[in-house]
Formats: sequence, structure tokens, C-alpha cells
Amino acid sequence: MFKGEIIAVGTELLLGQIANTNAQYISKKMAEIGVPIFYHHTVGDNSDRLKEVILQAKKRSNLIIFTGGLGPTQDDLTKEAAAETMNRKLILDEVSFNKIKAFFQQRNIFMTDNNKKQAMVIEGSTIFPNLQGLAVGIGLNVDRVHYVFLPGPPREMKPMLDQYVIPWIKKHYSGFTFFSKVMRFTGIGEAALEEQIIDIINKQDNPTIAPLANNGEVTIRLTAKAEDEAKALSLIHPIEKEIHQRLEDYHFANGEDNIEQIVFDTLKERKLTISASESITGGLIGTRFTSISGSSSIYRGGIICYSNDIKHRVLQVPQNVLNTKGAVSFETAKALAENTLQLFQTDIAISVTGIAGPEAVEEKPIGLVYIGLSEVGKQTVVKELHLSGSRDFIQSRAAKIAFYYLWKKLNERCKETNESFF
Amino acid sequence: MFKGEIIAVGTELLLGQIANTNAQYISKKMAEIGVPIFYHHTVGDNSDRLKEVILQAKKRSNLIIFTGGLGPTQDDLTKEAAAETMNRKLILDEVSFNKIKAFFQQRNIFMTDNNKKQAMVIEGSTIFPNLQGLAVGIGLNVDRVHYVFLPGPPREMKPMLDQYVIPWIKKHYSGFTFFSKVMRFTGIGEAALEEQIIDIINKQDNPTIAPLANNGEVTIRLTAKAEDEAKALSLIHPIEKEIHQRLEDYHFANGEDNIEQIVFDTLKERKLTISASESITGGLIGTRFTSISGSSSIYRGGIICYSNDIKHRVLQVPQNVLNTKGAVSFETAKALAENTLQLFQTDIAISVTGIAGPEAVEEKPIGLVYIGLSEVGKQTVVKELHLSGSRDFIQSRAAKIAFYYLWKKLNERCKETNESFF
Repeated sequence: MFKGEIIAVGTELLLGQIANTNAQYISKKMAEIGVPIFYHHTVGDNSDRLKEVILQAKKRSNLIIFTGGLGPTQDDLTKEAAAETMNRKLILDEVSFNKIKAFFQQRNIFMTDNNKKQAMVIEGSTIFPNLQGLAVGIGLNVDRVHYVFLPGPPREMKPMLDQYVIPWIKKHYSGFTFFSKVMRFTGIGEAALEEQIIDIINKQDNPTIAPLANNGEVTIRLTAKAEDEAKALSLIHPIEKEIHQRLEDYHFANGEDNIEQIVFDTLKERKLTISASESITGGLIGTRFTSISGSSSIYRGGIICYSNDIKHRVLQVPQNVLNTKGAVSFETAKALAENTLQLFQTDIAISVTGIAGPEAVEEKPIGLVYIGLSEVGKQTVVKELHLSGSRDFIQSRAAKIAFYYLWKKLNERCKETNESFF
Repeated sequence: MFKGEIIAVGTELLLGQIANTNAQYISKKMAEIGVPIFYHHTVGDNSDRLKEVILQAKKRSNLIIFTGGLGPTQDDLTKEAAAETMNRKLILDEVSFNKIKAFFQQRNIFMTDNNKKQAMVIEGSTIFPNLQGLAVGIGLNVDRVHYVFLPGPPREMKPMLDQYVIPWIKKHYSGFTFFSKVMRFTGIGEAALEEQIIDIINKQDNPTIAPLANNGEVTIRLTAKAEDEAKALSLIHPIEKEIHQRLEDYHFANGEDNIEQIVFDTLKERKLTISASESITGGLIGTRFTSISGSSSIYRGGIICYSNDIKHRVLQVPQNVLNTKGAVSFETAKALAENTLQLFQTDIAISVTGIAGPEAVEEKPIGLVYIGLSEVGKQTVVKELHLSGSRDFIQSRAAKIAFYYLWKKLNERCKETNESFF
């Protein structure tokens, strides 16, 4: 049974220049394969302090995963310090060194000597190739402790972990499996969600139940401990079913896909196109659609109608509606959605108008948002929201709720009236 | 002189459910006031392991900042474990408890007993009020070690740190000051930037010089150690001046403001309005403008012209241009910028069209991007870029470079010809 610990090496972390997202990524991956992590530790580019941290880690953990300090400069000293604590030597890995030399040759760049350092490995190591950079990763087992050395840049670290390190760890690991299943909810806050299943949470045992709010969604992670995956799943299933029944209205998926991806997949499956007119969200809905590869066949485009002039001239919101009802109104949201549908000639159009603050406008409260949804041949529906929080939070939440309504609509949980739709 | 250490408490961190952004925030603030942080440590909601980590921290650090585990539930045990290691008792802080009671009374909610826990403090503590939540923070000095206890949620932790903890630490701190100045660059990669000042970096002493790439920008942090701020600044100034002279074309600001904010401030100062037509960036430019409060007077809006049909129908790119040159072409970028200027009636319009991948289109390479810039009464300029990386990276970098060109334009470093503008 592994007891894991992550050691991040880098003064930039201690200065707060970057967040230790590597520790999160590695922890998450370890949780997924059932390896418990008991500590994260961060230390600067200092050999003495690093050795002290390693000696301590060896006493309490039998899987130590390092990240950072594998590069070519003098500051990079993770392998060197660790080798000292193991009384092992560093040797050159010829295969890795040839790759480094080829890299420089192909680019016609002179290779400085310090690059050789990136191909040095501790005696007896397994090599983990670096698909995105030059510093090689390694794994080794010394005195019943397993060590893994990963580079610091996330774009190098992640593929190395996923493709080489996880299979290596699994090979050296035996015992119980922790198997997790993640249920995803939106349109409901964490507290309200918890309240509806508090009795289930209170009597949790195996599986454990961990709700977490993040970015406008709430996830529930069910983690069961069992000899194999099938047994773990059979423990998870009844709890999952019970939670689903109570929270069906908000439970949009299981796994890693967020609501944007789920909406996109559903639109694609049903061959529906969509467009958006965004005022308060300023392009967030477009950004979220277009971050998905292949989205141009579904999301045809949008208007960021940040000024009233554009709402009127480009999207034909009648001037008297803007004058009497205001840009943040039921009527404007309705006109925006309908005229966006016309302009973009899509199957569905969504509009979002509101007040993000910090200044109130039109003598209306900060956080007031209207979302309009127009569909070919159907009655347009408009929903009024009252959000609170910072400017960024209100903008981001308004975009998230727009996707929640789209999801509800697409799931035909709603009827074509204002009340029942929302 | 303080030797600082941050201890984050929470099993959710070890499971990778969230990143330890608190450690970054606290470290950054400590660096700003010259308090060095030598370690970050993360431990789960487990009393024994937490006590072990505290006992170790006491041996190597004399300022220990905790974050997390101050809440009402049984899992929240940071103060309890720490009090044990100090042989001190927890006592009720009546003022904090009254605030908690008032909170529940105002909302007509029954207060469960466990909320009292959030007002319990270690004997001899200074109280740090929580402006955003119920769990009180504390600071105390026991056996020459200073302890600070902060809540885990960032929105509670940050204002408490800024308003109460930093003044408290400063009061207990004396000695040399570390003073930092941050120079910001964009339009140049970290490696190319370093190359231009490698001689300065190599002979660094006081101030130290730390380049860091993040999100399409490169910062250089100059940190000087001196008795006071004036002396630190006098050490920093000559180095700063030399670096500026060498990298003037990319040096857009000092401090915390990113290029988007600088462009926005400059447009505002000069009373210029702007609009954007975004294809490859899918709304990123709009999102970045509208994340700034008060942006509607400057950024009037934009079109997310994600499909060719919208480029033609809404933005009047001639069909024969789209047919013969393609949507990703010099000519399309030019037409988009010019017609956006007309449609939105702004002083400046920018257009971005390109291929983000992972599929190539129009038999053109992934990463090919055209940025157009049109201004009332001036010749439109178009720049061709060749980017590489993932889909997200190319989109985000294209948006960042659009802001870089805007900045260059606004700084009149460019002439009105295609060549010299870029």
C-alpha cells in the first residue's frame, strides 16, 4: 500500500509568482487510481533545505513524487540533492542526451554544456520520456521507497505523468482500489444541494460522499474502497441512484464534462445551430463554445452588444423599448434573442443582458440579469435572475446559468411557457 | 527576522479537488513586505498528522501561517490541534460569537451549536475579524514563534490577510526590507527576452532579477534588500533603466496591470472607442475588455463571426474574397476590420481570423492568424502570425497579440505602413 507525498521544488512557488497547480493535478490523478496522498510540500531551489525535506519524507511516505528542478541551470538541483540522500550517483542517459543534441541540431542552435544535465539520471532509474521538453523524468525504488521525478512546467509534467508515470506506479502498487465516480450538477448552490441529501451524507461510510462547488457547478464525488472496480461500482450504484432521484433537475452529467460541453454535444447530436447576443457576459458564451474543437458547425457566432447603440442599430431593439424599459429588461432580452435568431439564422438564439456592477445603471440593482431564449417556431422565453457577488462573478455566473437553461431546454424538461421553462 | 512557512489544512487539497491558491496569495503578499517564506506544507483534516507538521514547523520557522480548518464542522480542527501543541486552551471570544448569533437571527435561521466553534480562539490571541464569513482569524506569539490562523475560502482569507494580518506582522517584524518592482513585457517570449539581458542576469546580486512567463506576458521582478524602501529603490533604478532601454518595444508597464488594462486605460484617456470582429478568438477580446468595470464607454461591442456565412452576411466580407482567398486571409482580416469599424461606428476596430486546430482548414496550417486594425481616416494594417501550440493556447495568444498591437499603435511607435506598424 502506497502512502504518497508530493514535493514541489521552486523558489517561484514560495514567492507566489505561480500557484502549485502541479500538486493539484498529480493529487487528482493519484486519487483516481486509489493512491492516497498525505502531504504536499514546497521548498525553494536550495540543496540543504531540499535534502532535509527529502529525509523527512522518506520517514513518513513510501511514494515521493517530485516536480520541478530538472532543468539545465544551476538552480535545478532536485535530482542532485535526492541522489545524495540515496548515496547514488548520477549517470548520463545516452538515449535522452541524443534527443537533446538532435533538438539543437535541427534548429541550428549551439547547445550549451549545461543541457547535458537534463539527460543525467540517478543510477538504477526507469526513464520517463519528456514529450514536450528536454528534461527527462525518472522513477526508482530505493530501500522500499518509490521516487518519481517530474519536470516543473505543467505542459511537460502532465503528459509524462499520464503516459509513463501512472502505468509505472500501478505496476508497483497492489492492495485495495479506491474507485471514484463524479456526479455533476448546476443551477443549484452547494448548500442547497447538501440540504437535500444531508441524511445520505451523514450516514456515509463506503462510498464516501464529497460535494464540492466550483465555477458555478457542484460536483459530488462518490469514492468506494473495494478489491476491484466491479465491487466498488456495486457499492456506489445505490447511493448514486438515490442522489440522482432527489436532484434530477440539476444533475446534468457524470464525469469530467462541464455543462458547456454537454450542451454542445447535445446540440451536435440533434444537428441544431445556435447564436448568442451577449451584453453583460461580453463574449463569455462565445468563448466557452469556441473553446470546443469543431464548434463552428454548431455555434455560428454572436454579437457582443455592449452598448445600447449596438443593441438598437445592429440588433434592432426598438428605441422606445430601450428608452422606456431599459437595456436591462424583459423586453430587451426578448427582442435581442428574437433578432439574433433572425440575424444569424440559427435554430436557437440566446441573449443575456444585465448589470455586473460595481456601478448600478438605469436605477436597477447590481446583479439583475435577463436571459432570453428564442427558437424557430416557438414562443420566446425570458428569465429574470438576481445574482450577487463581484463583477467577474456575476458575469461568469450569468453565462453559466445561460448554459443551464439551454441544457434544461434541450432535455425537454420544460414546457413552452415562461413559468414552467425555468 | 522572520522565517516563514505556510501550512494549508484540508483533505480537498490532497485529493486535488482544488489548487492551493491561498499559498500563492499569501506568499506573494509576504514577498511584498519582505518576509521570506521557506516552505509550503499541505496536510489533510487529520489531527495527528497536523500536530506532527506543526511540531516540525516550529523547529525551522518562526512565522507559521495556517489556512483552512477554522469552520464549524468536526473536520475543522486546525485551532484545536495547534492549541494542543502549545499547551493552551481554547476560549470563547464573545464579540465574535455575538456576530455569529446576529447573523443567524437576521436571517431567521436556527443556529446549530457547532457554529460556536467558529468563535473559539486560543488563549492570548489577537482577533482578526472575518469580513466575508463567520470563522474568526487569530494571531499569537508563543515561545518566539508567531502563529497566524486564516480561514480556507479565498474570499474570506484575502481581506483578512490584507486588512488585519499584514499590519499585525509588520508590527512584529523588524530588519531589512525586501522591496520588489515588477516590469511587464509582451510580444516577446521569455527565452528571447532573457537572451537580450543575459549579461545583466548573470551578474545580478542586489537587486535579484527574476523573469517569469505567464499567459502571454513576461514579467521581470527586481527585488532589492535594503534598510528602507528609498534605498531599495535606488538600487533597483539603474538596472530597471538599463533593461527598459534594451526592451523598450515590449515593455508596456510596471506593476500589476496586464496589457488589456493598459490598452483600456490608454483608450479611455484619449477618449477613443473600439470594436472587434472575432473569429478564431471567439469572444476572448470582448471578454477581456468587458471584465474591466466601466468598459462600455470604450468597448462598444463586437461580432463573433465564427462562421463564413456571418462574415459575409453580417460583416459584408465579399463572397469572392471568401471563395478565392479564404476566411483565414489577409484580405478577409482587412475587410472584417474595415466593416466592423463601419458597423460599430467606433474610432478603432480590430479583427482576428485564424486556425486554432486541431483540424487544419482551407489547406492552411494550424496557427496561421491574421490580425487587422482599422482606424477612422487611416490605412488599415494587417499582420500575419504563425503560432504553435494547443487550440486554447493559439486562441489565447492571438487575443494577447491583438492587445499588443493595439498598445503599439496607441503608443505611436508605429507608422501608417504595414511594415513599420508591426
